[in-house]
Amino acid sequence: MSFTRWKEDLIELGRLGRKSSARIETYGQLDPEKGLYRLEGTEEMRRSKEYMIGRMKEAGLSVRIDRVGNIFGRREGSKAKKGAVMSGSHLDSVLNGGMFDGPLGVISALEAVRIMKDERFENERPIEVVIFMGEEGSAFKKILLGSHILVGKMPVEEAWQLKNREGLTLKDALDRGGLRGDFEMDLGDVEYFIEMHVEQGPILDQEKIPIGIVENITGLTWVYATLEGEENHAGTTPMFSRKDALVAAAEIILFANKRAKEMAREFRGSTVATVGRMSVLPGAPNIVPGRVEMGIDIRDGVEENMKNLREEILGRIRGLEEEYGIKSTIEIPFLHPPRPCSRAVVVTIAKAVQEMSLKVRRMNSGAGHDAQNIAEKVKTGMIFVPSIRGISHSPLEWTNWEDIERGIGVLTRALKDLSNLVPSPAFGG
Amino acid sequence: MSFTRWKEDLIELGRLGRKSSARIETYGQLDPEKGLYRLEGTEEMRRSKEYMIGRMKEAGLSVRIDRVGNIFGRREGSKAKKGAVMSGSHLDSVLNGGMFDGPLGVISALEAVRIMKDERFENERPIEVVIFMGEEGSAFKKILLGSHILVGKMPVEEAWQLKNREGLTLKDALDRGGLRGDFEMDLGDVEYFIEMHVEQGPILDQEKIPIGIVENITGLTWVYATLEGEENHAGTTPMFSRKDALVAAAEIILFANKRAKEMAREFRGSTVATVGRMSVLPGAPNIVPGRVEMGIDIRDGVEENMKNLREEILGRIRGLEEEYGIKSTIEIPFLHPPRPCSRAVVVTIAKAVQEMSLKVRRMNSGAGHDAQNIAEKVKTGMIFVPSIRGISHSPLEWTNWEDIERGIGVLTRALKDLSNLVPSPAFGG
Repeated sequence: MSFTRWKEDLIELGRLGRKSSARIETYGQLDPEKGLYRLEGTEEMRRSKEYMIGRMKEAGLSVRIDRVGNIFGRREGSKAKKGAVMSGSHLDSVLNGGMFDGPLGVISALEAVRIMKDERFENERPIEVVIFMGEEGSAFKKILLGSHILVGKMPVEEAWQLKNREGLTLKDALDRGGLRGDFEMDLGDVEYFIEMHVEQGPILDQEKIPIGIVENITGLTWVYATLEGEENHAGTTPMFSRKDALVAAAEIILFANKRAKEMAREFRGSTVATVGRMSVLPGAPNIVPGRVEMGIDIRDGVEENMKNLREEILGRIRGLEEEYGIKSTIEIPFLHPPRPCSRAVVVTIAKAVQEMSLKVRRMNSGAGHDAQNIAEKVKTGMIFVPSIRGISHSPLEWTNWEDIERGIGVLTRALKDLSNLVPSPAFGG
Repeated sequence: MSFTRWKEDLIELGRLGRKSSARIETYGQLDPEKGLYRLEGTEEMRRSKEYMIGRMKEAGLSVRIDRVGNIFGRREGSKAKKGAVMSGSHLDSVLNGGMFDGPLGVISALEAVRIMKDERFENERPIEVVIFMGEEGSAFKKILLGSHILVGKMPVEEAWQLKNREGLTLKDALDRGGLRGDFEMDLGDVEYFIEMHVEQGPILDQEKIPIGIVENITGLTWVYATLEGEENHAGTTPMFSRKDALVAAAEIILFANKRAKEMAREFRGSTVATVGRMSVLPGAPNIVPGRVEMGIDIRDGVEENMKNLREEILGRIRGLEEEYGIKSTIEIPFLHPPRPCSRAVVVTIAKAVQEMSLKVRRMNSGAGHDAQNIAEKVKTGMIFVPSIRGISHSPLEWTNWEDIERGIGVLTRALKDLSNLVPSPAFGG
């Protein structure tokens, strides 16, 4: 009955994360209106976490909750108390999100442990199933929040004061859900971490490959650019007297797009640049735009390429100041460097895939994941399964059950292998 | 005291049109926060029209209001009951508008009549001072509404049913303000019309010329384009798998800008093209835009050029469908052809300017005005006075008092001349 168990869990978690009570079992049932709203601090999250804690206890795990709501379920090791093998992901969704982004990695880790229990497998190292708090940033506006705090990049007390859209602090939101504990996880006691996740991109689906092994979590930086031109009457201001902020912005959009394509081709790499948010002010059809605010998202698996592309774009913006008589203000809210995965973990996953005779693809993760934080302290790897048509952050997100089954198979083998005090030597790799 | 009289009227109308009680007499007092909100149906409009009706009656005019709130003040002619000379403009403002756009033309026409009265000037034809209802379209969403109905392009009963943002019909709004009458103006009884207005563009101010004579009111057409691409994760969707609606939109913005510049240069004309409104959806920095809605404003003094430019832009949009894998939907809400001014009126204004030894410039009006509707039935001309830095539709709109004084001088001479049953023969022209 192992097949039914994890599938039922994923369907039930999907149901618990929706405002309506839809129960979705096949791709054909997806409804673009019926997404998940499982944000930290919501009723949907409270009941989902309670469900998961129940399942973890049933599987014989001892459940502990830390001070910011990260949840850990431990299966003791037969030969060691430290050097644990950790696996899991997050439960929270974006607004109107899909049912696999996050929960897939949590349920798969749980299922791996249940299989070990059923088989009376002796894991020498302890196993930790983890549920990270607030990965999407939908409620408290910081992405990867739970793992960020866990690796010590933000003090707990500072995190507690973060507020959601309703003005509720994280601390109050956790208390309201009964989900603030006092456990302190020491990552020094964790040796390996694997996060399984949906790809959220089209590559595996297009190439009909069931398993992706992440070698590198792509670096990410954002540029907020504000262009100030001069607001003018569209009918009475001659073309040569204008300082049109939108025309300047259009130059930047095309430049970023063109250079990202050129770099992706030149380095056969994962370079992407996207202008996804743009406000045009004042926004009347008959007024020359005086102000444009735009957000530019730049990613690359190679830090130098990412920084070079960002500098090229900033240089182009400066060039436009003279050309169009505009002024620009630049803010760079963050730069996350690319994070390579652990070679030991990558090779272990590859070995599991080989044993199962599955097609596999080495790849970068273009999306951010809690794994990139954990990788700062722990040997980390990621397993991807296909996203149909690459769709994610949408109620239409879907991964076929057979692909999930294969992923659970790979994850279980890899976790078993890593849980030996001396993992089996990898071949080839 | 004639100088003080019209200046006081303009200042008082500015005060009545503001929500605050600011009284602005010099350029230095302008505050970008304190604009006018004198929309049809508002308290600001009610008190402004009451003020004007009082002033018109003081000047000896008989005041009549038509069924949609256009107001007419008549000074009888000494030799004719028909073939009137009409002058005026509108009182309504855009949201957060300036104090001269509209009221300048109303007060200048009133002042011309007051000068005639003071000088006991005998106008052979009747003079009609007109206040058009709802020119800006800010309340009832149709521009040039009062003049549009006056020339018979929309039935009164249809206009009455138009609704503002609060859901109030035009009929109820007029009734609430006590400003719905039953007068029916017959434009067959009007021979000439002059509208004086601020330029709303930078040309007169840049060239230090106090008076512009409009030869042609520029044609105007709009294109609403919706581009549908594919919404995708900005991190996981390779550059070559994207259907980015915003990148396609940027191509259109640059194309329209470039071609309008080339045409303006080639024909030494008034070609302009502007993208002033644009929405980028879903609008998250890390999502490839799936949909862009844009409004393109195209104007030219030559109808053929305007239509050619529009066709070129539509052709470029169709070309992008293939190039970027997007779909486009086009709507063309209107095309107003260019409207030439009456040669007789233009020459009469030119003669008045010459008599006053003022520098003058013949020009097109890039903005739309009630004059373009009236020109369909009546010999029509327009006088422009400078807008400092070309700013209009903004609380920072300003015209120097000396320039207004010169404009009133020109208007008064021209109206006097036209009011003779046989206007004085113009020289040169």
